[in-house]
Amino acid sequence: MTDTPPDRPSASAVERLLADLKALLGPRTATSQAVREHHSRGEGLPDAVLPDIVVFPETNEEVAAVARLCNDARIPLVPFGAGSSLEGHVVPLHGGVSVDLTGMDRILEINPGSLDCRVQAGVTREQLNREIRSAGLFFPIDPGANASIGGMTATRASGTNAVRYGTMRENVLGLTVVTPDGRILRTGGRARKSAAGYDLTRLYVGSEGTLGIVTEIQLRLNGLPEAVAASVCQFPDLTSAVDTVVAAMQMNIPLARIELLDDMQMRACIRHSKLEGYGETPTLFLEFHGSPAAVAEQMDMMRAICDEHGGSAYIHATRPEDRTRLWKARHDVYFACLGLAPGKSCMSTDACVPISELANCIRETRADIDQTGLIAPIVGHVGDGNFHLTILFDPQDPDERGRADALAKRVSLRAIRMGGTCTGEHGIGLHKLDALEAEHGPSVELMRTLKRSFDPNNIMNPGKMIRLS
Amino acid sequence: MTDTPPDRPSASAVERLLADLKALLGPRTATSQAVREHHSRGEGLPDAVLPDIVVFPETNEEVAAVARLCNDARIPLVPFGAGSSLEGHVVPLHGGVSVDLTGMDRILEINPGSLDCRVQAGVTREQLNREIRSAGLFFPIDPGANASIGGMTATRASGTNAVRYGTMRENVLGLTVVTPDGRILRTGGRARKSAAGYDLTRLYVGSEGTLGIVTEIQLRLNGLPEAVAASVCQFPDLTSAVDTVVAAMQMNIPLARIELLDDMQMRACIRHSKLEGYGETPTLFLEFHGSPAAVAEQMDMMRAICDEHGGSAYIHATRPEDRTRLWKARHDVYFACLGLAPGKSCMSTDACVPISELANCIRETRADIDQTGLIAPIVGHVGDGNFHLTILFDPQDPDERGRADALAKRVSLRAIRMGGTCTGEHGIGLHKLDALEAEHGPSVELMRTLKRSFDPNNIMNPGKMIRLS
Repeated sequence: MTDTPPDRPSASAVERLLADLKALLGPRTATSQAVREHHSRGEGLPDAVLPDIVVFPETNEEVAAVARLCNDARIPLVPFGAGSSLEGHVVPLHGGVSVDLTGMDRILEINPGSLDCRVQAGVTREQLNREIRSAGLFFPIDPGANASIGGMTATRASGTNAVRYGTMRENVLGLTVVTPDGRILRTGGRARKSAAGYDLTRLYVGSEGTLGIVTEIQLRLNGLPEAVAASVCQFPDLTSAVDTVVAAMQMNIPLARIELLDDMQMRACIRHSKLEGYGETPTLFLEFHGSPAAVAEQMDMMRAICDEHGGSAYIHATRPEDRTRLWKARHDVYFACLGLAPGKSCMSTDACVPISELANCIRETRADIDQTGLIAPIVGHVGDGNFHLTILFDPQDPDERGRADALAKRVSLRAIRMGGTCTGEHGIGLHKLDALEAEHGPSVELMRTLKRSFDPNNIMNPGKMIRLS
Repeated sequence: MTDTPPDRPSASAVERLLADLKALLGPRTATSQAVREHHSRGEGLPDAVLPDIVVFPETNEEVAAVARLCNDARIPLVPFGAGSSLEGHVVPLHGGVSVDLTGMDRILEINPGSLDCRVQAGVTREQLNREIRSAGLFFPIDPGANASIGGMTATRASGTNAVRYGTMRENVLGLTVVTPDGRILRTGGRARKSAAGYDLTRLYVGSEGTLGIVTEIQLRLNGLPEAVAASVCQFPDLTSAVDTVVAAMQMNIPLARIELLDDMQMRACIRHSKLEGYGETPTLFLEFHGSPAAVAEQMDMMRAICDEHGGSAYIHATRPEDRTRLWKARHDVYFACLGLAPGKSCMSTDACVPISELANCIRETRADIDQTGLIAPIVGHVGDGNFHLTILFDPQDPDERGRADALAKRVSLRAIRMGGTCTGEHGIGLHKLDALEAEHGPSVELMRTLKRSFDPNNIMNPGKMIRLS
């Protein structure tokens, strides 16, 4: 058992492995600088480390053979999908092999009769939704980026629709997994529920590539809603906006999306997305799914709740083009934030608290941000108690980067103190190892037991998610 | 590592442990025949084994101390809640200590603002619902029996409301767990979602007492629905009843309950529960939750779907007393079945398939039952693809018991062949060890790895859920 993450492999070990990988995959084995750089980091922070080798397997068997070779050579293995991770999951911290799964992009089966499908790990969520739309189906998990389903599984992704449809935790029915020693295993199945054995599926969902490589995913799908509508409402302050969300959740209104943008985020979006008729105040974007009558009723109920909490500038967007414009503005918040301070970089952090603590947590966080002098808009999937900070900082200014890092850490600890979690959906990666310990305390030791028994040579994405000592 | 379940502990080892347990718990340590018999079996099959000792701990620390003593002495430990398990989970197969958690029956916190609560493992679901009703809340998981929340967690229970509200998998936010070596650990938290670390919570949910003892559970709660209504509809045959369910699911009708009773089950219920105006044909019991307008719309939509599929005798039950009568009849199916053949015993088995396979699977199963000459009504939470057989057999007739066992095994294998699972909600226990292997194949080895690393001395409920060799 290697208790500390391995150092970079020696040149001779890499040489030998490269020969074996070339024999296995031929030209789908790359060592060029450009390809290695592309696989050196995700989105978000610019921390980057080059892999020694990048491979592009196309079958379960090829992934298994790659794993066996790496395991025998004790060389790290880092799965890579769309590269949209925000927490450094795909950075090959100790070199080794980056396993690019984008070539595994086939949709293997679609079962409209039972509302499920099976896809390879490299399929992206937009690709999947394009394919199943004609069957009247959609896959609701929407983290913003056009992430791969494999990556979304590995990070337990969620996003704007999770308040109604759940996260990857609820929507993955089963997996094909390659273990570090190269076995190809199936977990779960196609039934909506099962009480048969340990929930290996849920163990791999969110394991961040540290227990094996997810190569295929069986997913739950949903019927496209008969009617869809959106609303926007503005509030005089954060508390009234958040209290509106809490009231809606307690009244069981089955909202499909409920997103909060704070005043600074609205300033960014108004400028970037040319939103007209809105002020720079806390704002909720809402979406409703259901029968036409159900949607109309939900909208009326929400309007009443908004009114009670001092909401204004209420608009209903039932035309698809108006809805698209609103949600495009929501999805473009990252670019909108960058526009607030040209030349700066963005650091994105997320946290999630019990919904009763949300107003407090966001209020304290807003005051904290203001004290730092940094620009950091807040946006959130507030129906789940989940919010994000997009912290702008000058990458050339170590002091500013330090203040940004410290702010992100305080957000994690504040959420934990309020009974929440240091990450609702982005994962631990390499930036939140301390926060994991703060959140889970002695039970992290049980996670270590798990990691050691599943990956005794610590070749799977070493240095991520959990410190082994 | 003890790879085979330990044999019964020696008399002298039990003697020594008993002295230690008495020092720890005083009179809450029992060895009387009556108490041991009460802890020798669950419901369902009469297979029984006496524990050597029964203890009644009342705190996490006491449970941890019991675990440490048992671990040091290598003596098996079997958690015991309401005793309503149907698959032999609580049978002390190799003797040892039955840990009765019914004394841990306190509700530790109720958080109406964030719709969650924390309870001790011995709290029953009816007790919890009584306590939270005045706060406008309810806990939806309803397996029929007044099970303990700890037992429901350990078996990943679900029941009639799962189609709308999910199972224990979706409704447990976090746990307090005592490990076999006596550590007290917290998993999960109060946030609705988290991407922080391995999902230890989901690992313990459904682990059937084989990885540790669940002592406290943080649960999601729901607001009581504003309006509730029920309907009943009868069908000329199984296929039209099941097709009705499939159509409703595909149309996204948010049914709260959708239960199928086959012709034999209806015969039993008409007799036992004095249901008037119904024929002995396949029947759906439905329940709707929502605003009054939403409930009315759902009922109209369901009526239209039922009509299309040849439904008749359609009744709406909006008055609480009528709904109660219907659901009491549903909950009393066990007794109704016993009434079909006085003197016989009941064996209950469940399976779950993708909903598109449900009609086929139930039809084949009905034909299979008819060939055996046994009486076995079918009832099911069909919105999830989950159905149960209540197989009647003469406990004095080994041949009949053999035919009943063989039928239950064929149901498991049929469900697996159709892409489903050998148990949707009852668990593996001691009757479905073969079925687990048939369903999960080589990935059972990964479950063994897990069990060995979490419980290296195999003291936790040995012989259940998984064969170690």
